Amino acid sequence: MKCYGSSEILSELKGKDTLFLCVIATTKTSNIPGITGAGATPELTEYTPAADLELVIYGEPKCLPEIPQTVTGDAVAPTPAVITKASLELADIPIIVADAGTGIKPDIPYIKLGNRPGEDVRTGNAVPNAREIFEKGVLLGKTLSKLTDHLVIGESTPAGTTTALGVLTALGYDAKQKVSGSMPENPHNLKYEAVMEGLKAAGYGEGEVVEDALKAVEIVGDPTIPAVAGIVMGSSIPVVLAGGTQMTAVCSVIKGIDPGFDFSKLCIATTIFVAEDETADINQLTRQVADINIFAVDPEFEKSSVAGLKNYLDGSVKEGVGAGGVMMAALLKDVSIDNIRLKIEDLCDKIF
Amino acid sequence: MKCYGSSEILSELKGKDTLFLCVIATTKTSNIPGITGAGATPELTEYTPAADLELVIYGEPKCLPEIPQTVTGDAVAPTPAVITKASLELADIPIIVADAGTGIKPDIPYIKLGNRPGEDVRTGNAVPNAREIFEKGVLLGKTLSKLTDHLVIGESTPAGTTTALGVLTALGYDAKQKVSGSMPENPHNLKYEAVMEGLKAAGYGEGEVVEDALKAVEIVGDPTIPAVAGIVMGSSIPVVLAGGTQMTAVCSVIKGIDPGFDFSKLCIATTIFVAEDETADINQLTRQVADINIFAVDPEFEKSSVAGLKNYLDGSVKEGVGAGGVMMAALLKDVSIDNIRLKIEDLCDKIF
Repeated sequence: MKCYGSSEILSELKGKDTLFLCVIATTKTSNIPGITGAGATPELTEYTPAADLELVIYGEPKCLPEIPQTVTGDAVAPTPAVITKASLELADIPIIVADAGTGIKPDIPYIKLGNRPGEDVRTGNAVPNAREIFEKGVLLGKTLSKLTDHLVIGESTPAGTTTALGVLTALGYDAKQKVSGSMPENPHNLKYEAVMEGLKAAGYGEGEVVEDALKAVEIVGDPTIPAVAGIVMGSSIPVVLAGGTQMTAVCSVIKGIDPGFDFSKLCIATTIFVAEDETADINQLTRQVADINIFAVDPEFEKSSVAGLKNYLDGSVKEGVGAGGVMMAALLKDVSIDNIRLKIEDLCDKIF
Repeated sequence: MKCYGSSEILSELKGKDTLFLCVIATTKTSNIPGITGAGATPELTEYTPAADLELVIYGEPKCLPEIPQTVTGDAVAPTPAVITKASLELADIPIIVADAGTGIKPDIPYIKLGNRPGEDVRTGNAVPNAREIFEKGVLLGKTLSKLTDHLVIGESTPAGTTTALGVLTALGYDAKQKVSGSMPENPHNLKYEAVMEGLKAAGYGEGEVVEDALKAVEIVGDPTIPAVAGIVMGSSIPVVLAGGTQMTAVCSVIKGIDPGFDFSKLCIATTIFVAEDETADINQLTRQVADINIFAVDPEFEKSSVAGLKNYLDGSVKEGVGAGGVMMAALLKDVSIDNIRLKIEDLCDKIF
């Protein structure tokens, strides 16, 4: 595992009780052709969070006949949900799912935080209920803090790097060309144009929403961002944000709401594929927000016999469903990375 | 606290981590005039679970301008949610709400188990999705068992004693005149007629659904019963069923699904108002199902200066929102019953 910053928090988390909370949402932004690889077609991206979490719980999706895969040209890579499932099972970590706003609901018990999916960022009115979602998140964070020692929060939000770009841009960060993505070719211009169209529609330009972070979410964000920000701000225990540059956007909202927020009780944990993504820069982007420690776990897929997993090495998928952070949580419970990879391969054989 | 059976389990629970899970549902059965006191009018009973849980979380209902009270003639008694709120706060016990199927949703984060409210028992098709709710409950019980040492499960289900009577009757138990109720005068005949009409509509008579407990729920139950049965059967930790004769119906379903179920890891905890209800008989009814230990907590409202609370002594309300079991959980954390009553009075002063 690579560490960017201080690794001090690891000794605090080692051997502690862990709960994995996966926040899901869909938005109409993911229907923009070419903006995300998280689904076989733009329309099917709305099924991806539900199908991913059903796969984690049941070993197969129920809402879709097909298994979520990221398709880029000829390369097909399995959903990161298999990484999450393998790690949770090996380390016996419980999972709770929270719905911040989805069009397609997973057929599992889940916590309801929001009552509608996000709109297209280009409308400039992407998450009209951002404040309500945030307040529910705060309540949930308070409750979960009484039930575990350490919270790992992941997400599944197709086109979530575009909405992350939206929030970061609205809040005045230099995020252009820096957010990650689920395809080897990162459609930076497409994402940026969508975000700028939304800001313009709401009557703002880059960096012009600095006074109100939740307003930035309302205009060009997604429902996951205020949910995770609320959960973190309601929590009184260490939190691992299990995701890529989308979690940087969450941190920017937290800092916007509370400029004095203590980021030392928090870290970002992701995969090596995000941390070393040549089309993005999570480290530089996150440093703009605060000194937040970042961990990156390498499942060493180059050693894998499964062709689909090797496509991760070429930039497909990279992260999602908390894959990086859940692998870290498993490592902290003394599961080895080789066993995680073997279990992932085993799941791929069974599922695909 | 009175104990009917063995009190051995108390030493096992003492000082342990506790989670209070409150399962809520509404049914069209509660719209039958005169069948329940859990709401100012038959139509308003559909708001009671949401308003009760909003009161526990926020100190006031959000879905209704009025506070839930049980009205019987001139007597107005405050909702048992104030007992639950006082006990949870004094003992610092976390609460999670699970929606088994409600018409009106609480404005709080909650776990979704069912996607529709129950129908009128007289249709003979009261909970068509009982099996799905049960399966979701099993998954939830498995997850929660990893997050706490000891689960206290309460409920808020207007007309829930009628649906309890329905399930017990369908399964062949002698429940006539034995289920409790929220009013001093227990409308036993009204409840029984509604249940028999439902059984007949489905083509069954008393005791004729013994081969399939979830079928009994489908015909004349409510969504809470399969949810709680599933959660208990999915759990691997001690469970306190915090409620009155409705929890006896849950036990009858568990026994129907698994005749060899070990009821020693489980107990029922209720209020003294249910245990000593002269219009009902929880002890005799429960013994028909299995040797299940029953605890009854007395908040000693005769010592109270609040007139509304004294109406509990005359048979109003009696129980609900897990009041009895949550008081027991607070006692196990060394909160005194006098402090619980003082806190309830304090809440009544603030809220009403």
